[in-house]
Amino acid sequence: MSMGEQLLQLGQQAREAANQLRILSADTRSEGIRAMARKVRDSVAEIVTANEEDMGAATQNLDRLMLNEARVFAIADALDEVAALPDPVGAEMSRWQRPNGLDIARVRTPIGVIGMIYESRPNVTADAAAICIRSGNAVILRSGSDALNSSLAIHRALQAGLAEAGLPIHAVQLVDTPDRAAVSALLGGLNGSVDLVIPRGGKGLVQRVQDDAKVPVLSHLEGVCHTYVHKAADPEKAVSIVRNAKMRRVGICGATECLLIDVDIAPSLLPGIAAALEGCELRGDDRARAIVGMNSATEEDWGKEYLAPILAIRVVDGLEQAIDHIATYGTAHTEAIITEDAATAETFLNEVDSAIVIWNASTQFADGGEFGFGAEIGIATGKMHARGPVGPEQLTSFHYLVRGDGQVRP
Amino acid sequence: MSMGEQLLQLGQQAREAANQLRILSADTRSEGIRAMARKVRDSVAEIVTANEEDMGAATQNLDRLMLNEARVFAIADALDEVAALPDPVGAEMSRWQRPNGLDIARVRTPIGVIGMIYESRPNVTADAAAICIRSGNAVILRSGSDALNSSLAIHRALQAGLAEAGLPIHAVQLVDTPDRAAVSALLGGLNGSVDLVIPRGGKGLVQRVQDDAKVPVLSHLEGVCHTYVHKAADPEKAVSIVRNAKMRRVGICGATECLLIDVDIAPSLLPGIAAALEGCELRGDDRARAIVGMNSATEEDWGKEYLAPILAIRVVDGLEQAIDHIATYGTAHTEAIITEDAATAETFLNEVDSAIVIWNASTQFADGGEFGFGAEIGIATGKMHARGPVGPEQLTSFHYLVRGDGQVRP
Repeated sequence: MSMGEQLLQLGQQAREAANQLRILSADTRSEGIRAMARKVRDSVAEIVTANEEDMGAATQNLDRLMLNEARVFAIADALDEVAALPDPVGAEMSRWQRPNGLDIARVRTPIGVIGMIYESRPNVTADAAAICIRSGNAVILRSGSDALNSSLAIHRALQAGLAEAGLPIHAVQLVDTPDRAAVSALLGGLNGSVDLVIPRGGKGLVQRVQDDAKVPVLSHLEGVCHTYVHKAADPEKAVSIVRNAKMRRVGICGATECLLIDVDIAPSLLPGIAAALEGCELRGDDRARAIVGMNSATEEDWGKEYLAPILAIRVVDGLEQAIDHIATYGTAHTEAIITEDAATAETFLNEVDSAIVIWNASTQFADGGEFGFGAEIGIATGKMHARGPVGPEQLTSFHYLVRGDGQVRP
Repeated sequence: MSMGEQLLQLGQQAREAANQLRILSADTRSEGIRAMARKVRDSVAEIVTANEEDMGAATQNLDRLMLNEARVFAIADALDEVAALPDPVGAEMSRWQRPNGLDIARVRTPIGVIGMIYESRPNVTADAAAICIRSGNAVILRSGSDALNSSLAIHRALQAGLAEAGLPIHAVQLVDTPDRAAVSALLGGLNGSVDLVIPRGGKGLVQRVQDDAKVPVLSHLEGVCHTYVHKAADPEKAVSIVRNAKMRRVGICGATECLLIDVDIAPSLLPGIAAALEGCELRGDDRARAIVGMNSATEEDWGKEYLAPILAIRVVDGLEQAIDHIATYGTAHTEAIITEDAATAETFLNEVDSAIVIWNASTQFADGGEFGFGAEIGIATGKMHARGPVGPEQLTSFHYLVRGDGQVRP
């Protein structure tokens, strides 16, 4: 069989598995995920050995790639957590009666077959599989080639778990070749067998998937998050929130990249904020630099995703200018306002068109776990289907169940 | 300016209008739609005259294309109906508290800029504009070239209404050239200015849009709807529902194209159903033909969208075979079961993976108006974002508003 034929077969098998998975009970899906966790624990030696092969060949991203016993057990624990999450399939989202007596319910269903294309981190193999099974979807995984041996070993354990629990093993399949043509085939939809593609990785990967996909894509582009300190901000909250939003972890998408601060409060507050941002390079506009000594921000610093201990700072005249700055330079991911003035906060919440808009808290809360979703497969930056953290519920579609008693349409 | 530059300008203007539209009040949007209705009534003479030009040049679809005074007033009435619909923007879909005190609300927002590509029927110009304004979206309309003069006249009235009500006139724009390259430009997203494309027309148009679009598409493909008469069907309901499902209107997507009937009940029930389907050509399998004289169905009749007074009929062994037939030949649009056995009905509702699954009623209820949505821009046959009738609510996205009191992430 050629690679193309093999991939089409993968697609058909995934579709068949999805059709079975959809009508299994929630408990059966939970048991499948728990069995996957057990088999991952049982396979810890094989997985670590396979990872050593990958590590031996790798030249970069070594920490993201590396698996030891503790990390393998953490992968299994994460599976058990997903097994314990509420199952979204079959949930009634709404239900109403029509004047003619028809009873219409909108009910969650799985999407079907999801193609997951990711880079480096081998734990994504297990995380994505678990979230897809939780939401009743079959998944075709395409691991980064540098983690392929690790992913294959994890995948063998996952399929052993599915088999043990009596679930279709083709509910979780892995493309076993590093050939990049396999990605193109997946993006083409495998002859109608793929309903959705989710890329998870760098900007280059996501852009390629968006450009080439012939099927719907849920993708995660840049997070250029802003924190706006309004003149009515509580100074203590402002300092601790800005420090956390920038410095808790600088490499995640919810990290604040740009601080906007009102001209009225900047002279009194900016020095304290700057002092709290130890170890962070500050790049300010002229008005900021007149208050605290720092590097000069250029046009390129506005809208820049540093993913590093660097913060752009702009002094603004007020709310309107802050909202304009965010609309011009932001990526509609996550923005926060710090203020004690409720009316101003509500205006900000209403007018800023980002996936997540926050009042008086850190932008680093942009996370499925922090939202209570239990797990996430990524954060969607598009506006269609899902926005923000993508957990099991966001990986469902819905349909309408109409119950009648003989009604015909006039 | 070249056509390409003009279209990019249209895109920019639409984006600016969308940003304004999003934060206007629901009442202001309602008033805009009512003003559009008034201006359509005021412009009835110009619209009919423009339509006469189109009719003079047209060679087909004359009834779909034709506008007279009554039809123009009906267009205006439809606008007033949309003006009276609830406004979905800003509605809280859900709201919850996290253990750390964060208050998270999921709130509806407009999608942004919608590209609407349609054929022939000039009333779509007004209908689509109204639904988009109702949902806070700007729209770029691309009319079929045979209706272009009519659409231009309607569009002038719509913009006059927007201007009178103080809404941005670029909230509703129409591509004023029949050049097909304009469609390609729209499908390319006009440099990021188009968030969603909705095609409405024949299979050729929809397929082209799906193949070429670089932006998300909500599309309406075939409706090959099935009605399954289970052995526990009430005979009277079965006869009246099948007749309505097939013959009420044969050219709409919710018309039943294939009847499945249980072998146990076919001898007693099929003659009555056949008699009720006066004027309809029946094409049956061997078991059906042994009961009632009719033409022979071939493999091509299964899964065929006739949009005509033709019905394929297959006698099945029972529920399982009916569900298998639908999974194999259906298009996941709308299917119905006729039975008095609640357990069988629930199995059918649970296992059939169509946008709309109906128990004891006609498949012709597959319609936004019948669902209580007030208006629809089409019926989505994909699984992403929206499924089934697409009304104002389905033309929204959502985002999360997070209200805190100084929380930082540990």
